[in-house]
Amino acid sequence: MSSSRARIVHNAQDGMAPVKGTKDYLPDEQLGRERVLEVLRDTFKLYGYSPVETSILEHYQTAASKFGGGSEILKETYRLTDRGNRELALRYELTFKLAKLFAMHQDIKLPFKRYEVGRVFRDGPVKAGRLREFTQCDVDVIGTESIAADAELLGLTSHIFGKLGIDITIQVNNRKILFGIFEICGIGPDKHHEAAISIDKFEKIGEDAVRSELISKGLANGQVDDLFQIFRKVMALPENNSMVGFLRSVGSRNRESLLISGLNELDRLLEYCAEFNAISEVEFTPNLARGLGYYTGPMWEVYAKESSITSSVAAGGRWDDMTGKFLGTGVKYPATGMGFGLDVIHTVLQEKLIRDGTKSMSSSVPVLLIVPVDNAVANAAMRLATQLREEGVSTDITFNMRVRKALDYANKRDIPLVTVIGDTELENQSAEIKNMRSGHAETVSLEGMSAMIKEIIRSE
Amino acid sequence: MSSSRARIVHNAQDGMAPVKGTKDYLPDEQLGRERVLEVLRDTFKLYGYSPVETSILEHYQTAASKFGGGSEILKETYRLTDRGNRELALRYELTFKLAKLFAMHQDIKLPFKRYEVGRVFRDGPVKAGRLREFTQCDVDVIGTESIAADAELLGLTSHIFGKLGIDITIQVNNRKILFGIFEICGIGPDKHHEAAISIDKFEKIGEDAVRSELISKGLANGQVDDLFQIFRKVMALPENNSMVGFLRSVGSRNRESLLISGLNELDRLLEYCAEFNAISEVEFTPNLARGLGYYTGPMWEVYAKESSITSSVAAGGRWDDMTGKFLGTGVKYPATGMGFGLDVIHTVLQEKLIRDGTKSMSSSVPVLLIVPVDNAVANAAMRLATQLREEGVSTDITFNMRVRKALDYANKRDIPLVTVIGDTELENQSAEIKNMRSGHAETVSLEGMSAMIKEIIRSE
Repeated sequence: MSSSRARIVHNAQDGMAPVKGTKDYLPDEQLGRERVLEVLRDTFKLYGYSPVETSILEHYQTAASKFGGGSEILKETYRLTDRGNRELALRYELTFKLAKLFAMHQDIKLPFKRYEVGRVFRDGPVKAGRLREFTQCDVDVIGTESIAADAELLGLTSHIFGKLGIDITIQVNNRKILFGIFEICGIGPDKHHEAAISIDKFEKIGEDAVRSELISKGLANGQVDDLFQIFRKVMALPENNSMVGFLRSVGSRNRESLLISGLNELDRLLEYCAEFNAISEVEFTPNLARGLGYYTGPMWEVYAKESSITSSVAAGGRWDDMTGKFLGTGVKYPATGMGFGLDVIHTVLQEKLIRDGTKSMSSSVPVLLIVPVDNAVANAAMRLATQLREEGVSTDITFNMRVRKALDYANKRDIPLVTVIGDTELENQSAEIKNMRSGHAETVSLEGMSAMIKEIIRSE
Repeated sequence: MSSSRARIVHNAQDGMAPVKGTKDYLPDEQLGRERVLEVLRDTFKLYGYSPVETSILEHYQTAASKFGGGSEILKETYRLTDRGNRELALRYELTFKLAKLFAMHQDIKLPFKRYEVGRVFRDGPVKAGRLREFTQCDVDVIGTESIAADAELLGLTSHIFGKLGIDITIQVNNRKILFGIFEICGIGPDKHHEAAISIDKFEKIGEDAVRSELISKGLANGQVDDLFQIFRKVMALPENNSMVGFLRSVGSRNRESLLISGLNELDRLLEYCAEFNAISEVEFTPNLARGLGYYTGPMWEVYAKESSITSSVAAGGRWDDMTGKFLGTGVKYPATGMGFGLDVIHTVLQEKLIRDGTKSMSSSVPVLLIVPVDNAVANAAMRLATQLREEGVSTDITFNMRVRKALDYANKRDIPLVTVIGDTELENQSAEIKNMRSGHAETVSLEGMSAMIKEIIRSE
């Protein structure tokens, strides 16, 4: 059996390999991913966000509109045509789908708080941790100008990672602060975007490398000196308030400046974060710039502490301009939102479970395997399975499988509990539940079996 | 605002219409669909099935292999190429993806019980209730020959529709019974498939129309007479056992015949269905033939009673040959499984909710809207929202919205409970919860708010 399967697997010409950039998830992994999704969905709902589902197939024209994500993404858009010769694309993100949904349904009430979980496709370079087909989990609100909506999303973030038992840092910045610092250093608005991309790497590639980049982008040496002086000082300060205080002093000459306006927004964000129970995770990071293309105000990136994963596990920000631009009507629709990285969160969680040495019995599928010793007791074993399932215990049962083989199967599939049912068990109406992990066994009445299993799970 | 949105919507040239054959789901609908998915996933796990996730992108060659669904489906397969000029396809079903997954992973233990929920794509004719992009919910087991596995799936079906409160009929047949009857009427094996497709319509289009079809397919008048005599008699009988008994008498001359072998399997299926609590829904339907292409033994279709929906809400059967054929190794892998129609189940459920006049508060998102009267009480209102969310109440809160507008918003979004927070409420540490559906209002301490809301939900 296995040798014939092996032949297939190694014959890649048969098309029996995954498509480049795609991945299949087997039960062990998928159970964990579904657990993460459950926490995400439950928390989104708890915070008043409702689900939508949009199509993967999109008009190429709509996907390609210059408001639909920009030319970088467009190069990576999968194209196809249908039998009606329509030019189609596979969606590459969920945000423009939200803008389109909003445009198409005039009866949507503002603020519109929605989440969507779904696959997106990008025909880009394949690297470690970067796939061409992957799942995005987005949560956004359209129609709220208040910074409280941004803070609420950080509260939601804190809630989610709290439920998952993952310690996080939320790096927060505001586009106005970053550009305001550039303004104060005399850097022209045409260079703000490019300068931001370099400054973002301040701690990663070091001052010298950032300086070369900035000079090559047309900044004067004096401008870079001023910039570095500010960033060196602010980033050496120990906590959010002192950093804000220092930047306020830098911007004090002009109370109407971009910098002061950004700091005012940040102050409010921090104030509201305290109400939404997220303040202990928030770290003001004045050089944070990623995702800048979209964002118009606050922006943030979430990192897991104590993890080998260095990429962010979630990120977001305010995007007040995109919906209006997409609609092309000149009306502005304030919006803020964020995305959670399903696979990166799952990887962090796996690391943690391995580190903690816990493998939860409650999330096993199945929790119990019922093994009838022969056909004579098969029907009674089926009734027992039915009873346990009705009582909420994830149960499997073997059909025509010898006991030795069934135990081996339970071991290899890592099913935590096994009960063997024979004549004696039916006569006594009681059976032994064997814990395959601890080796411990206990006898219990058939009637009391689900109660005992729930007790075993609870006491883990 | 709405007028500019309207302009967009009516300008289909902008690509602002859905792609033909696709559909977007807004919150009202999607909340219901997610509820159905939750019941499906929970029950699949309860019955010992674990989740997998496979890629939507597939090698065209793999999708097109003659074992991958047949030429009918192939005409409807979306094709595309990636930047590496690979010939790709969008998957059109989940079953061949399962067979491929199984082929690629030799470490998968048998029996392999898996479920998968995911989108599939078919570039076919668009009719009412038929989309080009839709969600399949499949549950299958590879590696079990026992008919008990088929019966277990019917138990799972009964459990799911019980949880959803939908009364169902499970029409059951066996390919061997159908072909066995043809055999007895002297119809050659080469005509079995075609004859089955016509006989399936016996009750829908009437005897005369079926007769013309069968004659045009090359059956003799005498053969059709014999066939009709059997089907008229068996289908007039009142219950499963008498139908089986009659067909046993028809097949009694040869105990080794296909018919007797099929009836033996059916007897066992009915026996096991009793153990798996599904017997009251099962109706033996000897002319059932749909899905025949795949199926090798038992097959079934599930229909909702008391619904305007006449198409099946779920269907399945045994497919012992496909994996082996797909692998091309000659080794046979017995398998059985079924699919649930997410959208059709959701439609039945919506009908039922409208009929019963119930709109559940517990499934509302949010359940409660907190309305701070002004900015002075905004922070305290945020703290209240945080507290209620920590205590598990789906809560939304308005930012900078006047009370009158907030109440209008709650009405239009059908948020069931509203509480307005002002100075007096904070001073007294209590507030009024208004039930927007009943008009009833009750005052409660801020601390006791979540307990009262849970009580309101329970007592609904």
